Amino acid sequence: MTLGQIAAAIGARLRGGDASVRVTGVATLQNAQPQHISFLTNPRYRQYLKSTRACAVILSQRDADSYAITALVSANPHATYARAAALFTHHTRHHPGIHPTAVVSPGAQIAKSAWIGPLCTVEKGAIIEKQVFVGPHCVIGERVVLGAETYLIANVTVCHDVRIGQRVLVHPGAVIGSDGFGLAHEDNHWIKVPQLGNVQVGNEVEIGANTTIDRGTLEDTIIEEGVKLDNQIQVAHNVHIGAHTAIAGCVGIAGSARIGRHCVLGGGVGIAGHLDIVDHVRITGMSLVTQSLTEAGTYSSGLSVEPNRLWNKISARLRKLDNLARRLTALEKKHRTNNDI
Amino acid sequence: MTLGQIAAAIGARLRGGDASVRVTGVATLQNAQPQHISFLTNPRYRQYLKSTRACAVILSQRDADSYAITALVSANPHATYARAAALFTHHTRHHPGIHPTAVVSPGAQIAKSAWIGPLCTVEKGAIIEKQVFVGPHCVIGERVVLGAETYLIANVTVCHDVRIGQRVLVHPGAVIGSDGFGLAHEDNHWIKVPQLGNVQVGNEVEIGANTTIDRGTLEDTIIEEGVKLDNQIQVAHNVHIGAHTAIAGCVGIAGSARIGRHCVLGGGVGIAGHLDIVDHVRITGMSLVTQSLTEAGTYSSGLSVEPNRLWNKISARLRKLDNLARRLTALEKKHRTNNDI
Amino acid sequence: MTLGQIAAAIGARLRGGDASVRVTGVATLQNAQPQHISFLTNPRYRQYLKSTRACAVILSQRDADSYAITALVSANPHATYARAAALFTHHTRHHPGIHPTAVVSPGAQIAKSAWIGPLCTVEKGAIIEKQVFVGPHCVIGERVVLGAETYLIANVTVCHDVRIGQRVLVHPGAVIGSDGFGLAHEDNHWIKVPQLGNVQVGNEVEIGANTTIDRGTLEDTIIEEGVKLDNQIQVAHNVHIGAHTAIAGCVGIAGSARIGRHCVLGGGVGIAGHLDIVDHVRITGMSLVTQSLTEAGTYSSGLSVEPNRLWNKISARLRKLDNLARRLTALEKKHRTNNDI
Repeated sequence: MTLGQIAAAIGARLRGGDASVRVTGVATLQNAQPQHISFLTNPRYRQYLKSTRACAVILSQRDADSYAITALVSANPHATYARAAALFTHHTRHHPGIHPTAVVSPGAQIAKSAWIGPLCTVEKGAIIEKQVFVGPHCVIGERVVLGAETYLIANVTVCHDVRIGQRVLVHPGAVIGSDGFGLAHEDNHWIKVPQLGNVQVGNEVEIGANTTIDRGTLEDTIIEEGVKLDNQIQVAHNVHIGAHTAIAGCVGIAGSARIGRHCVLGGGVGIAGHLDIVDHVRITGMSLVTQSLTEAGTYSSGLSVEPNRLWNKISARLRKLDNLARRLTALEKKHRTNNDI
Repeated sequence: MTLGQIAAAIGARLRGGDASVRVTGVATLQNAQPQHISFLTNPRYRQYLKSTRACAVILSQRDADSYAITALVSANPHATYARAAALFTHHTRHHPGIHPTAVVSPGAQIAKSAWIGPLCTVEKGAIIEKQVFVGPHCVIGERVVLGAETYLIANVTVCHDVRIGQRVLVHPGAVIGSDGFGLAHEDNHWIKVPQLGNVQVGNEVEIGANTTIDRGTLEDTIIEEGVKLDNQIQVAHNVHIGAHTAIAGCVGIAGSARIGRHCVLGGGVGIAGHLDIVDHVRITGMSLVTQSLTEAGTYSSGLSVEPNRLWNKISARLRKLDNLARRLTALEKKHRTNNDI
Repeated sequence: MTLGQIAAAIGARLRGGDASVRVTGVATLQNAQPQHISFLTNPRYRQYLKSTRACAVILSQRDADSYAITALVSANPHATYARAAALFTHHTRHHPGIHPTAVVSPGAQIAKSAWIGPLCTVEKGAIIEKQVFVGPHCVIGERVVLGAETYLIANVTVCHDVRIGQRVLVHPGAVIGSDGFGLAHEDNHWIKVPQLGNVQVGNEVEIGANTTIDRGTLEDTIIEEGVKLDNQIQVAHNVHIGAHTAIAGCVGIAGSARIGRHCVLGGGVGIAGHLDIVDHVRITGMSLVTQSLTEAGTYSSGLSVEPNRLWNKISARLRKLDNLARRLTALEKKHRTNNDI
């Protein structure tokens, strides 16, 4: 593609440069060669703008005004870069058909334009819509629906009756529709509570590697459209995640929690069960939420490291914090008494 | 089934209503139709008792006394509900036999009533007992034993020599018998310590999706009967988990920890290695245990979120807590001195 | 093997005993039989030295001096034990060849001495070097390189273009080369940022069960030689882990973090993105690192459990810690004022 074609494709304005230059890829400012375009989205890399060899750089208007280099000017350089990089992504080709080693039930409906990869199992009643890509080693359970253009990279397990929307991307090792952790206690042992609900995954959702999403107890676990889940996230039964919420790796969400739209959860966050989080909440990494959050905003409870010896002192003092507070109150009281006297 | 038959099957007493009514399923109080039975196990749903359309509701005697509706009276409504729901669970049929695409060593012993699903591998010396269900894409290593009626849903990996009891349920992506993390340090690099022990899993254990259980270093990692493990739990080598303990998702248990019977661990809990936890301990979510717990009871160390700006202040103060305590002590001393004067 | 042969093989000096005794395995001090050798690496087991039935015990010079038993004297008993145990490890045999149920692209290059197990997929352009073992159910993507003697136990997914070094050991369920979590925000939804980098894994790395390693955004995620990763670790895009660093289970490392050489991270640790940790840093379990660590040493932020009622008090006081500190300052000020008067 030429630089001019790229500018048009990504919706950026070419400022300076030769629109006919041939571009072969994207690269960082430091590593770009003359056949690459680059980008500035993180201010710490601004220092490389002067020395980059890229044939053009995706910049905000403000940065373009400050640097006399060939620019692809954009109101949102990060999004524009994402579109540029997508032009150079090598997708595994999407051959329609069913690999001869796949085990496909005659009772499954598979669109002619879909691909079922090697060593997959597709059970009866499954519906695989058009342009779906099922990579190698996936298991598609009974009556599962995979919406059009959904892409399962490899080794994904989708349990019976789960419904997945369109243009969903699922990474290897993800499990969708495992049983929720439902237990009743009787006579000193646990009785399994059958998990009769399903999972509904909306359009344009992304599900990371080894992430698990449990089916509901009676009603469905719901992941609304545009939700982005990173790797190794645990979503328990009956959870509801609102549209366009993004959740980083290693987050655990307990049963029946309801998370709003447009939320952002940092890595390792824990959400207790049976609570509500409103829209537009951000939670920083490794925080724990044990009560509903009724106002938008940023919340935290993570503590960052100190040298171990100092931390041990802090931690020992913390254990006596109730006592310390009482001592302070006593002293305040004495002080007032003394002053009264 | 009729309402009367269900009452008998679940051990509940039908109070009022027509025992001959035909029931097709279970549902929540809000969503039940006249052909459903429902239940009350969480007081927050009591408000729906008056308006539910369910033909009968599983209730405690106390609730049954207060509400003049058709009731299935039970001393333990949650357990009774679990039994009722089980009546309506659609199990994947259990065809005895071996799917033609499974790769089964001639040296494996497989009961005639067991099912080995598509694209499974069963290695030599494995023993698969009667009524076992091995779903698609499972790997059963050499000399593994799967006890009678054990059910591996799909894509489960059981490494060599692991012994699994009867009526165990394992969810997709679980790995049982991976090597423990044993390392010796020498000349600035790590030497692998061979992991020569096994894993023993007792009867009626449940193992969640993508949970991992490492084999012992020399002796065995042991999961006693009736233990329930949720998704994405990590059980390190030589761990011993006592009978009927339930562990929620994302818990990590370090090597050689010993957890008692009838314990309950909340989500995201971390247990350090080489410690003992007695029976009947409960640990709330995202807590860390670094020393043995010698008394039954509930323990915590998780901190719940605050608005980020407030948390940053708290966190900054916490870092100076040792100093703050010293200042208080100094002031107390001065105060005493002044008073003495 | 005889005791004398073992002493030679593990580089220990036999002190006392009969070098011609036949040894069949290793065992703990408590469980050893006369045909076993044993070891002392943890002082808490010293009490068993007097009663052990082992034919010889791997000991430090100091312990050998104190106990008049047959000893295999070593400067580093733990490493010497690791070598002894390796002598008795039953490796799954390494048959060269390709199992007939494996799906291997004609465009893959597979060394004659490599083994590709049942139900594996090897895609075009993959290079499998000599003596590699690919266990059952692995997926090897396009253009992946597996270096000589690398061993994938079972059910490992290696995505396209990932390069893995020599003598690497990978446990079941691991995913190497999934997409990083790259998102650009535009018009209230997320746009995927293509992940065009790869993963490079150095020689002698070990990767635990269900661990995930994301590919880089533009450049590569790098795991240097000798790194040991336990189970269920999440390594995000562009992370760089220095040689001989060991990381325990359930650790999450966010994007572009750079971890030094010879570090040790405890279980459940969280590392925020875009920071640097120097060599020889140790971080204790469940700690959170949010800023670069520029000095070697041990760091912590984990808090260990207290009885729940006490913890609730501490936690409530902690929420008012800013206020408490202000009250103390005020009291100090008054005290000074009073004294001045």
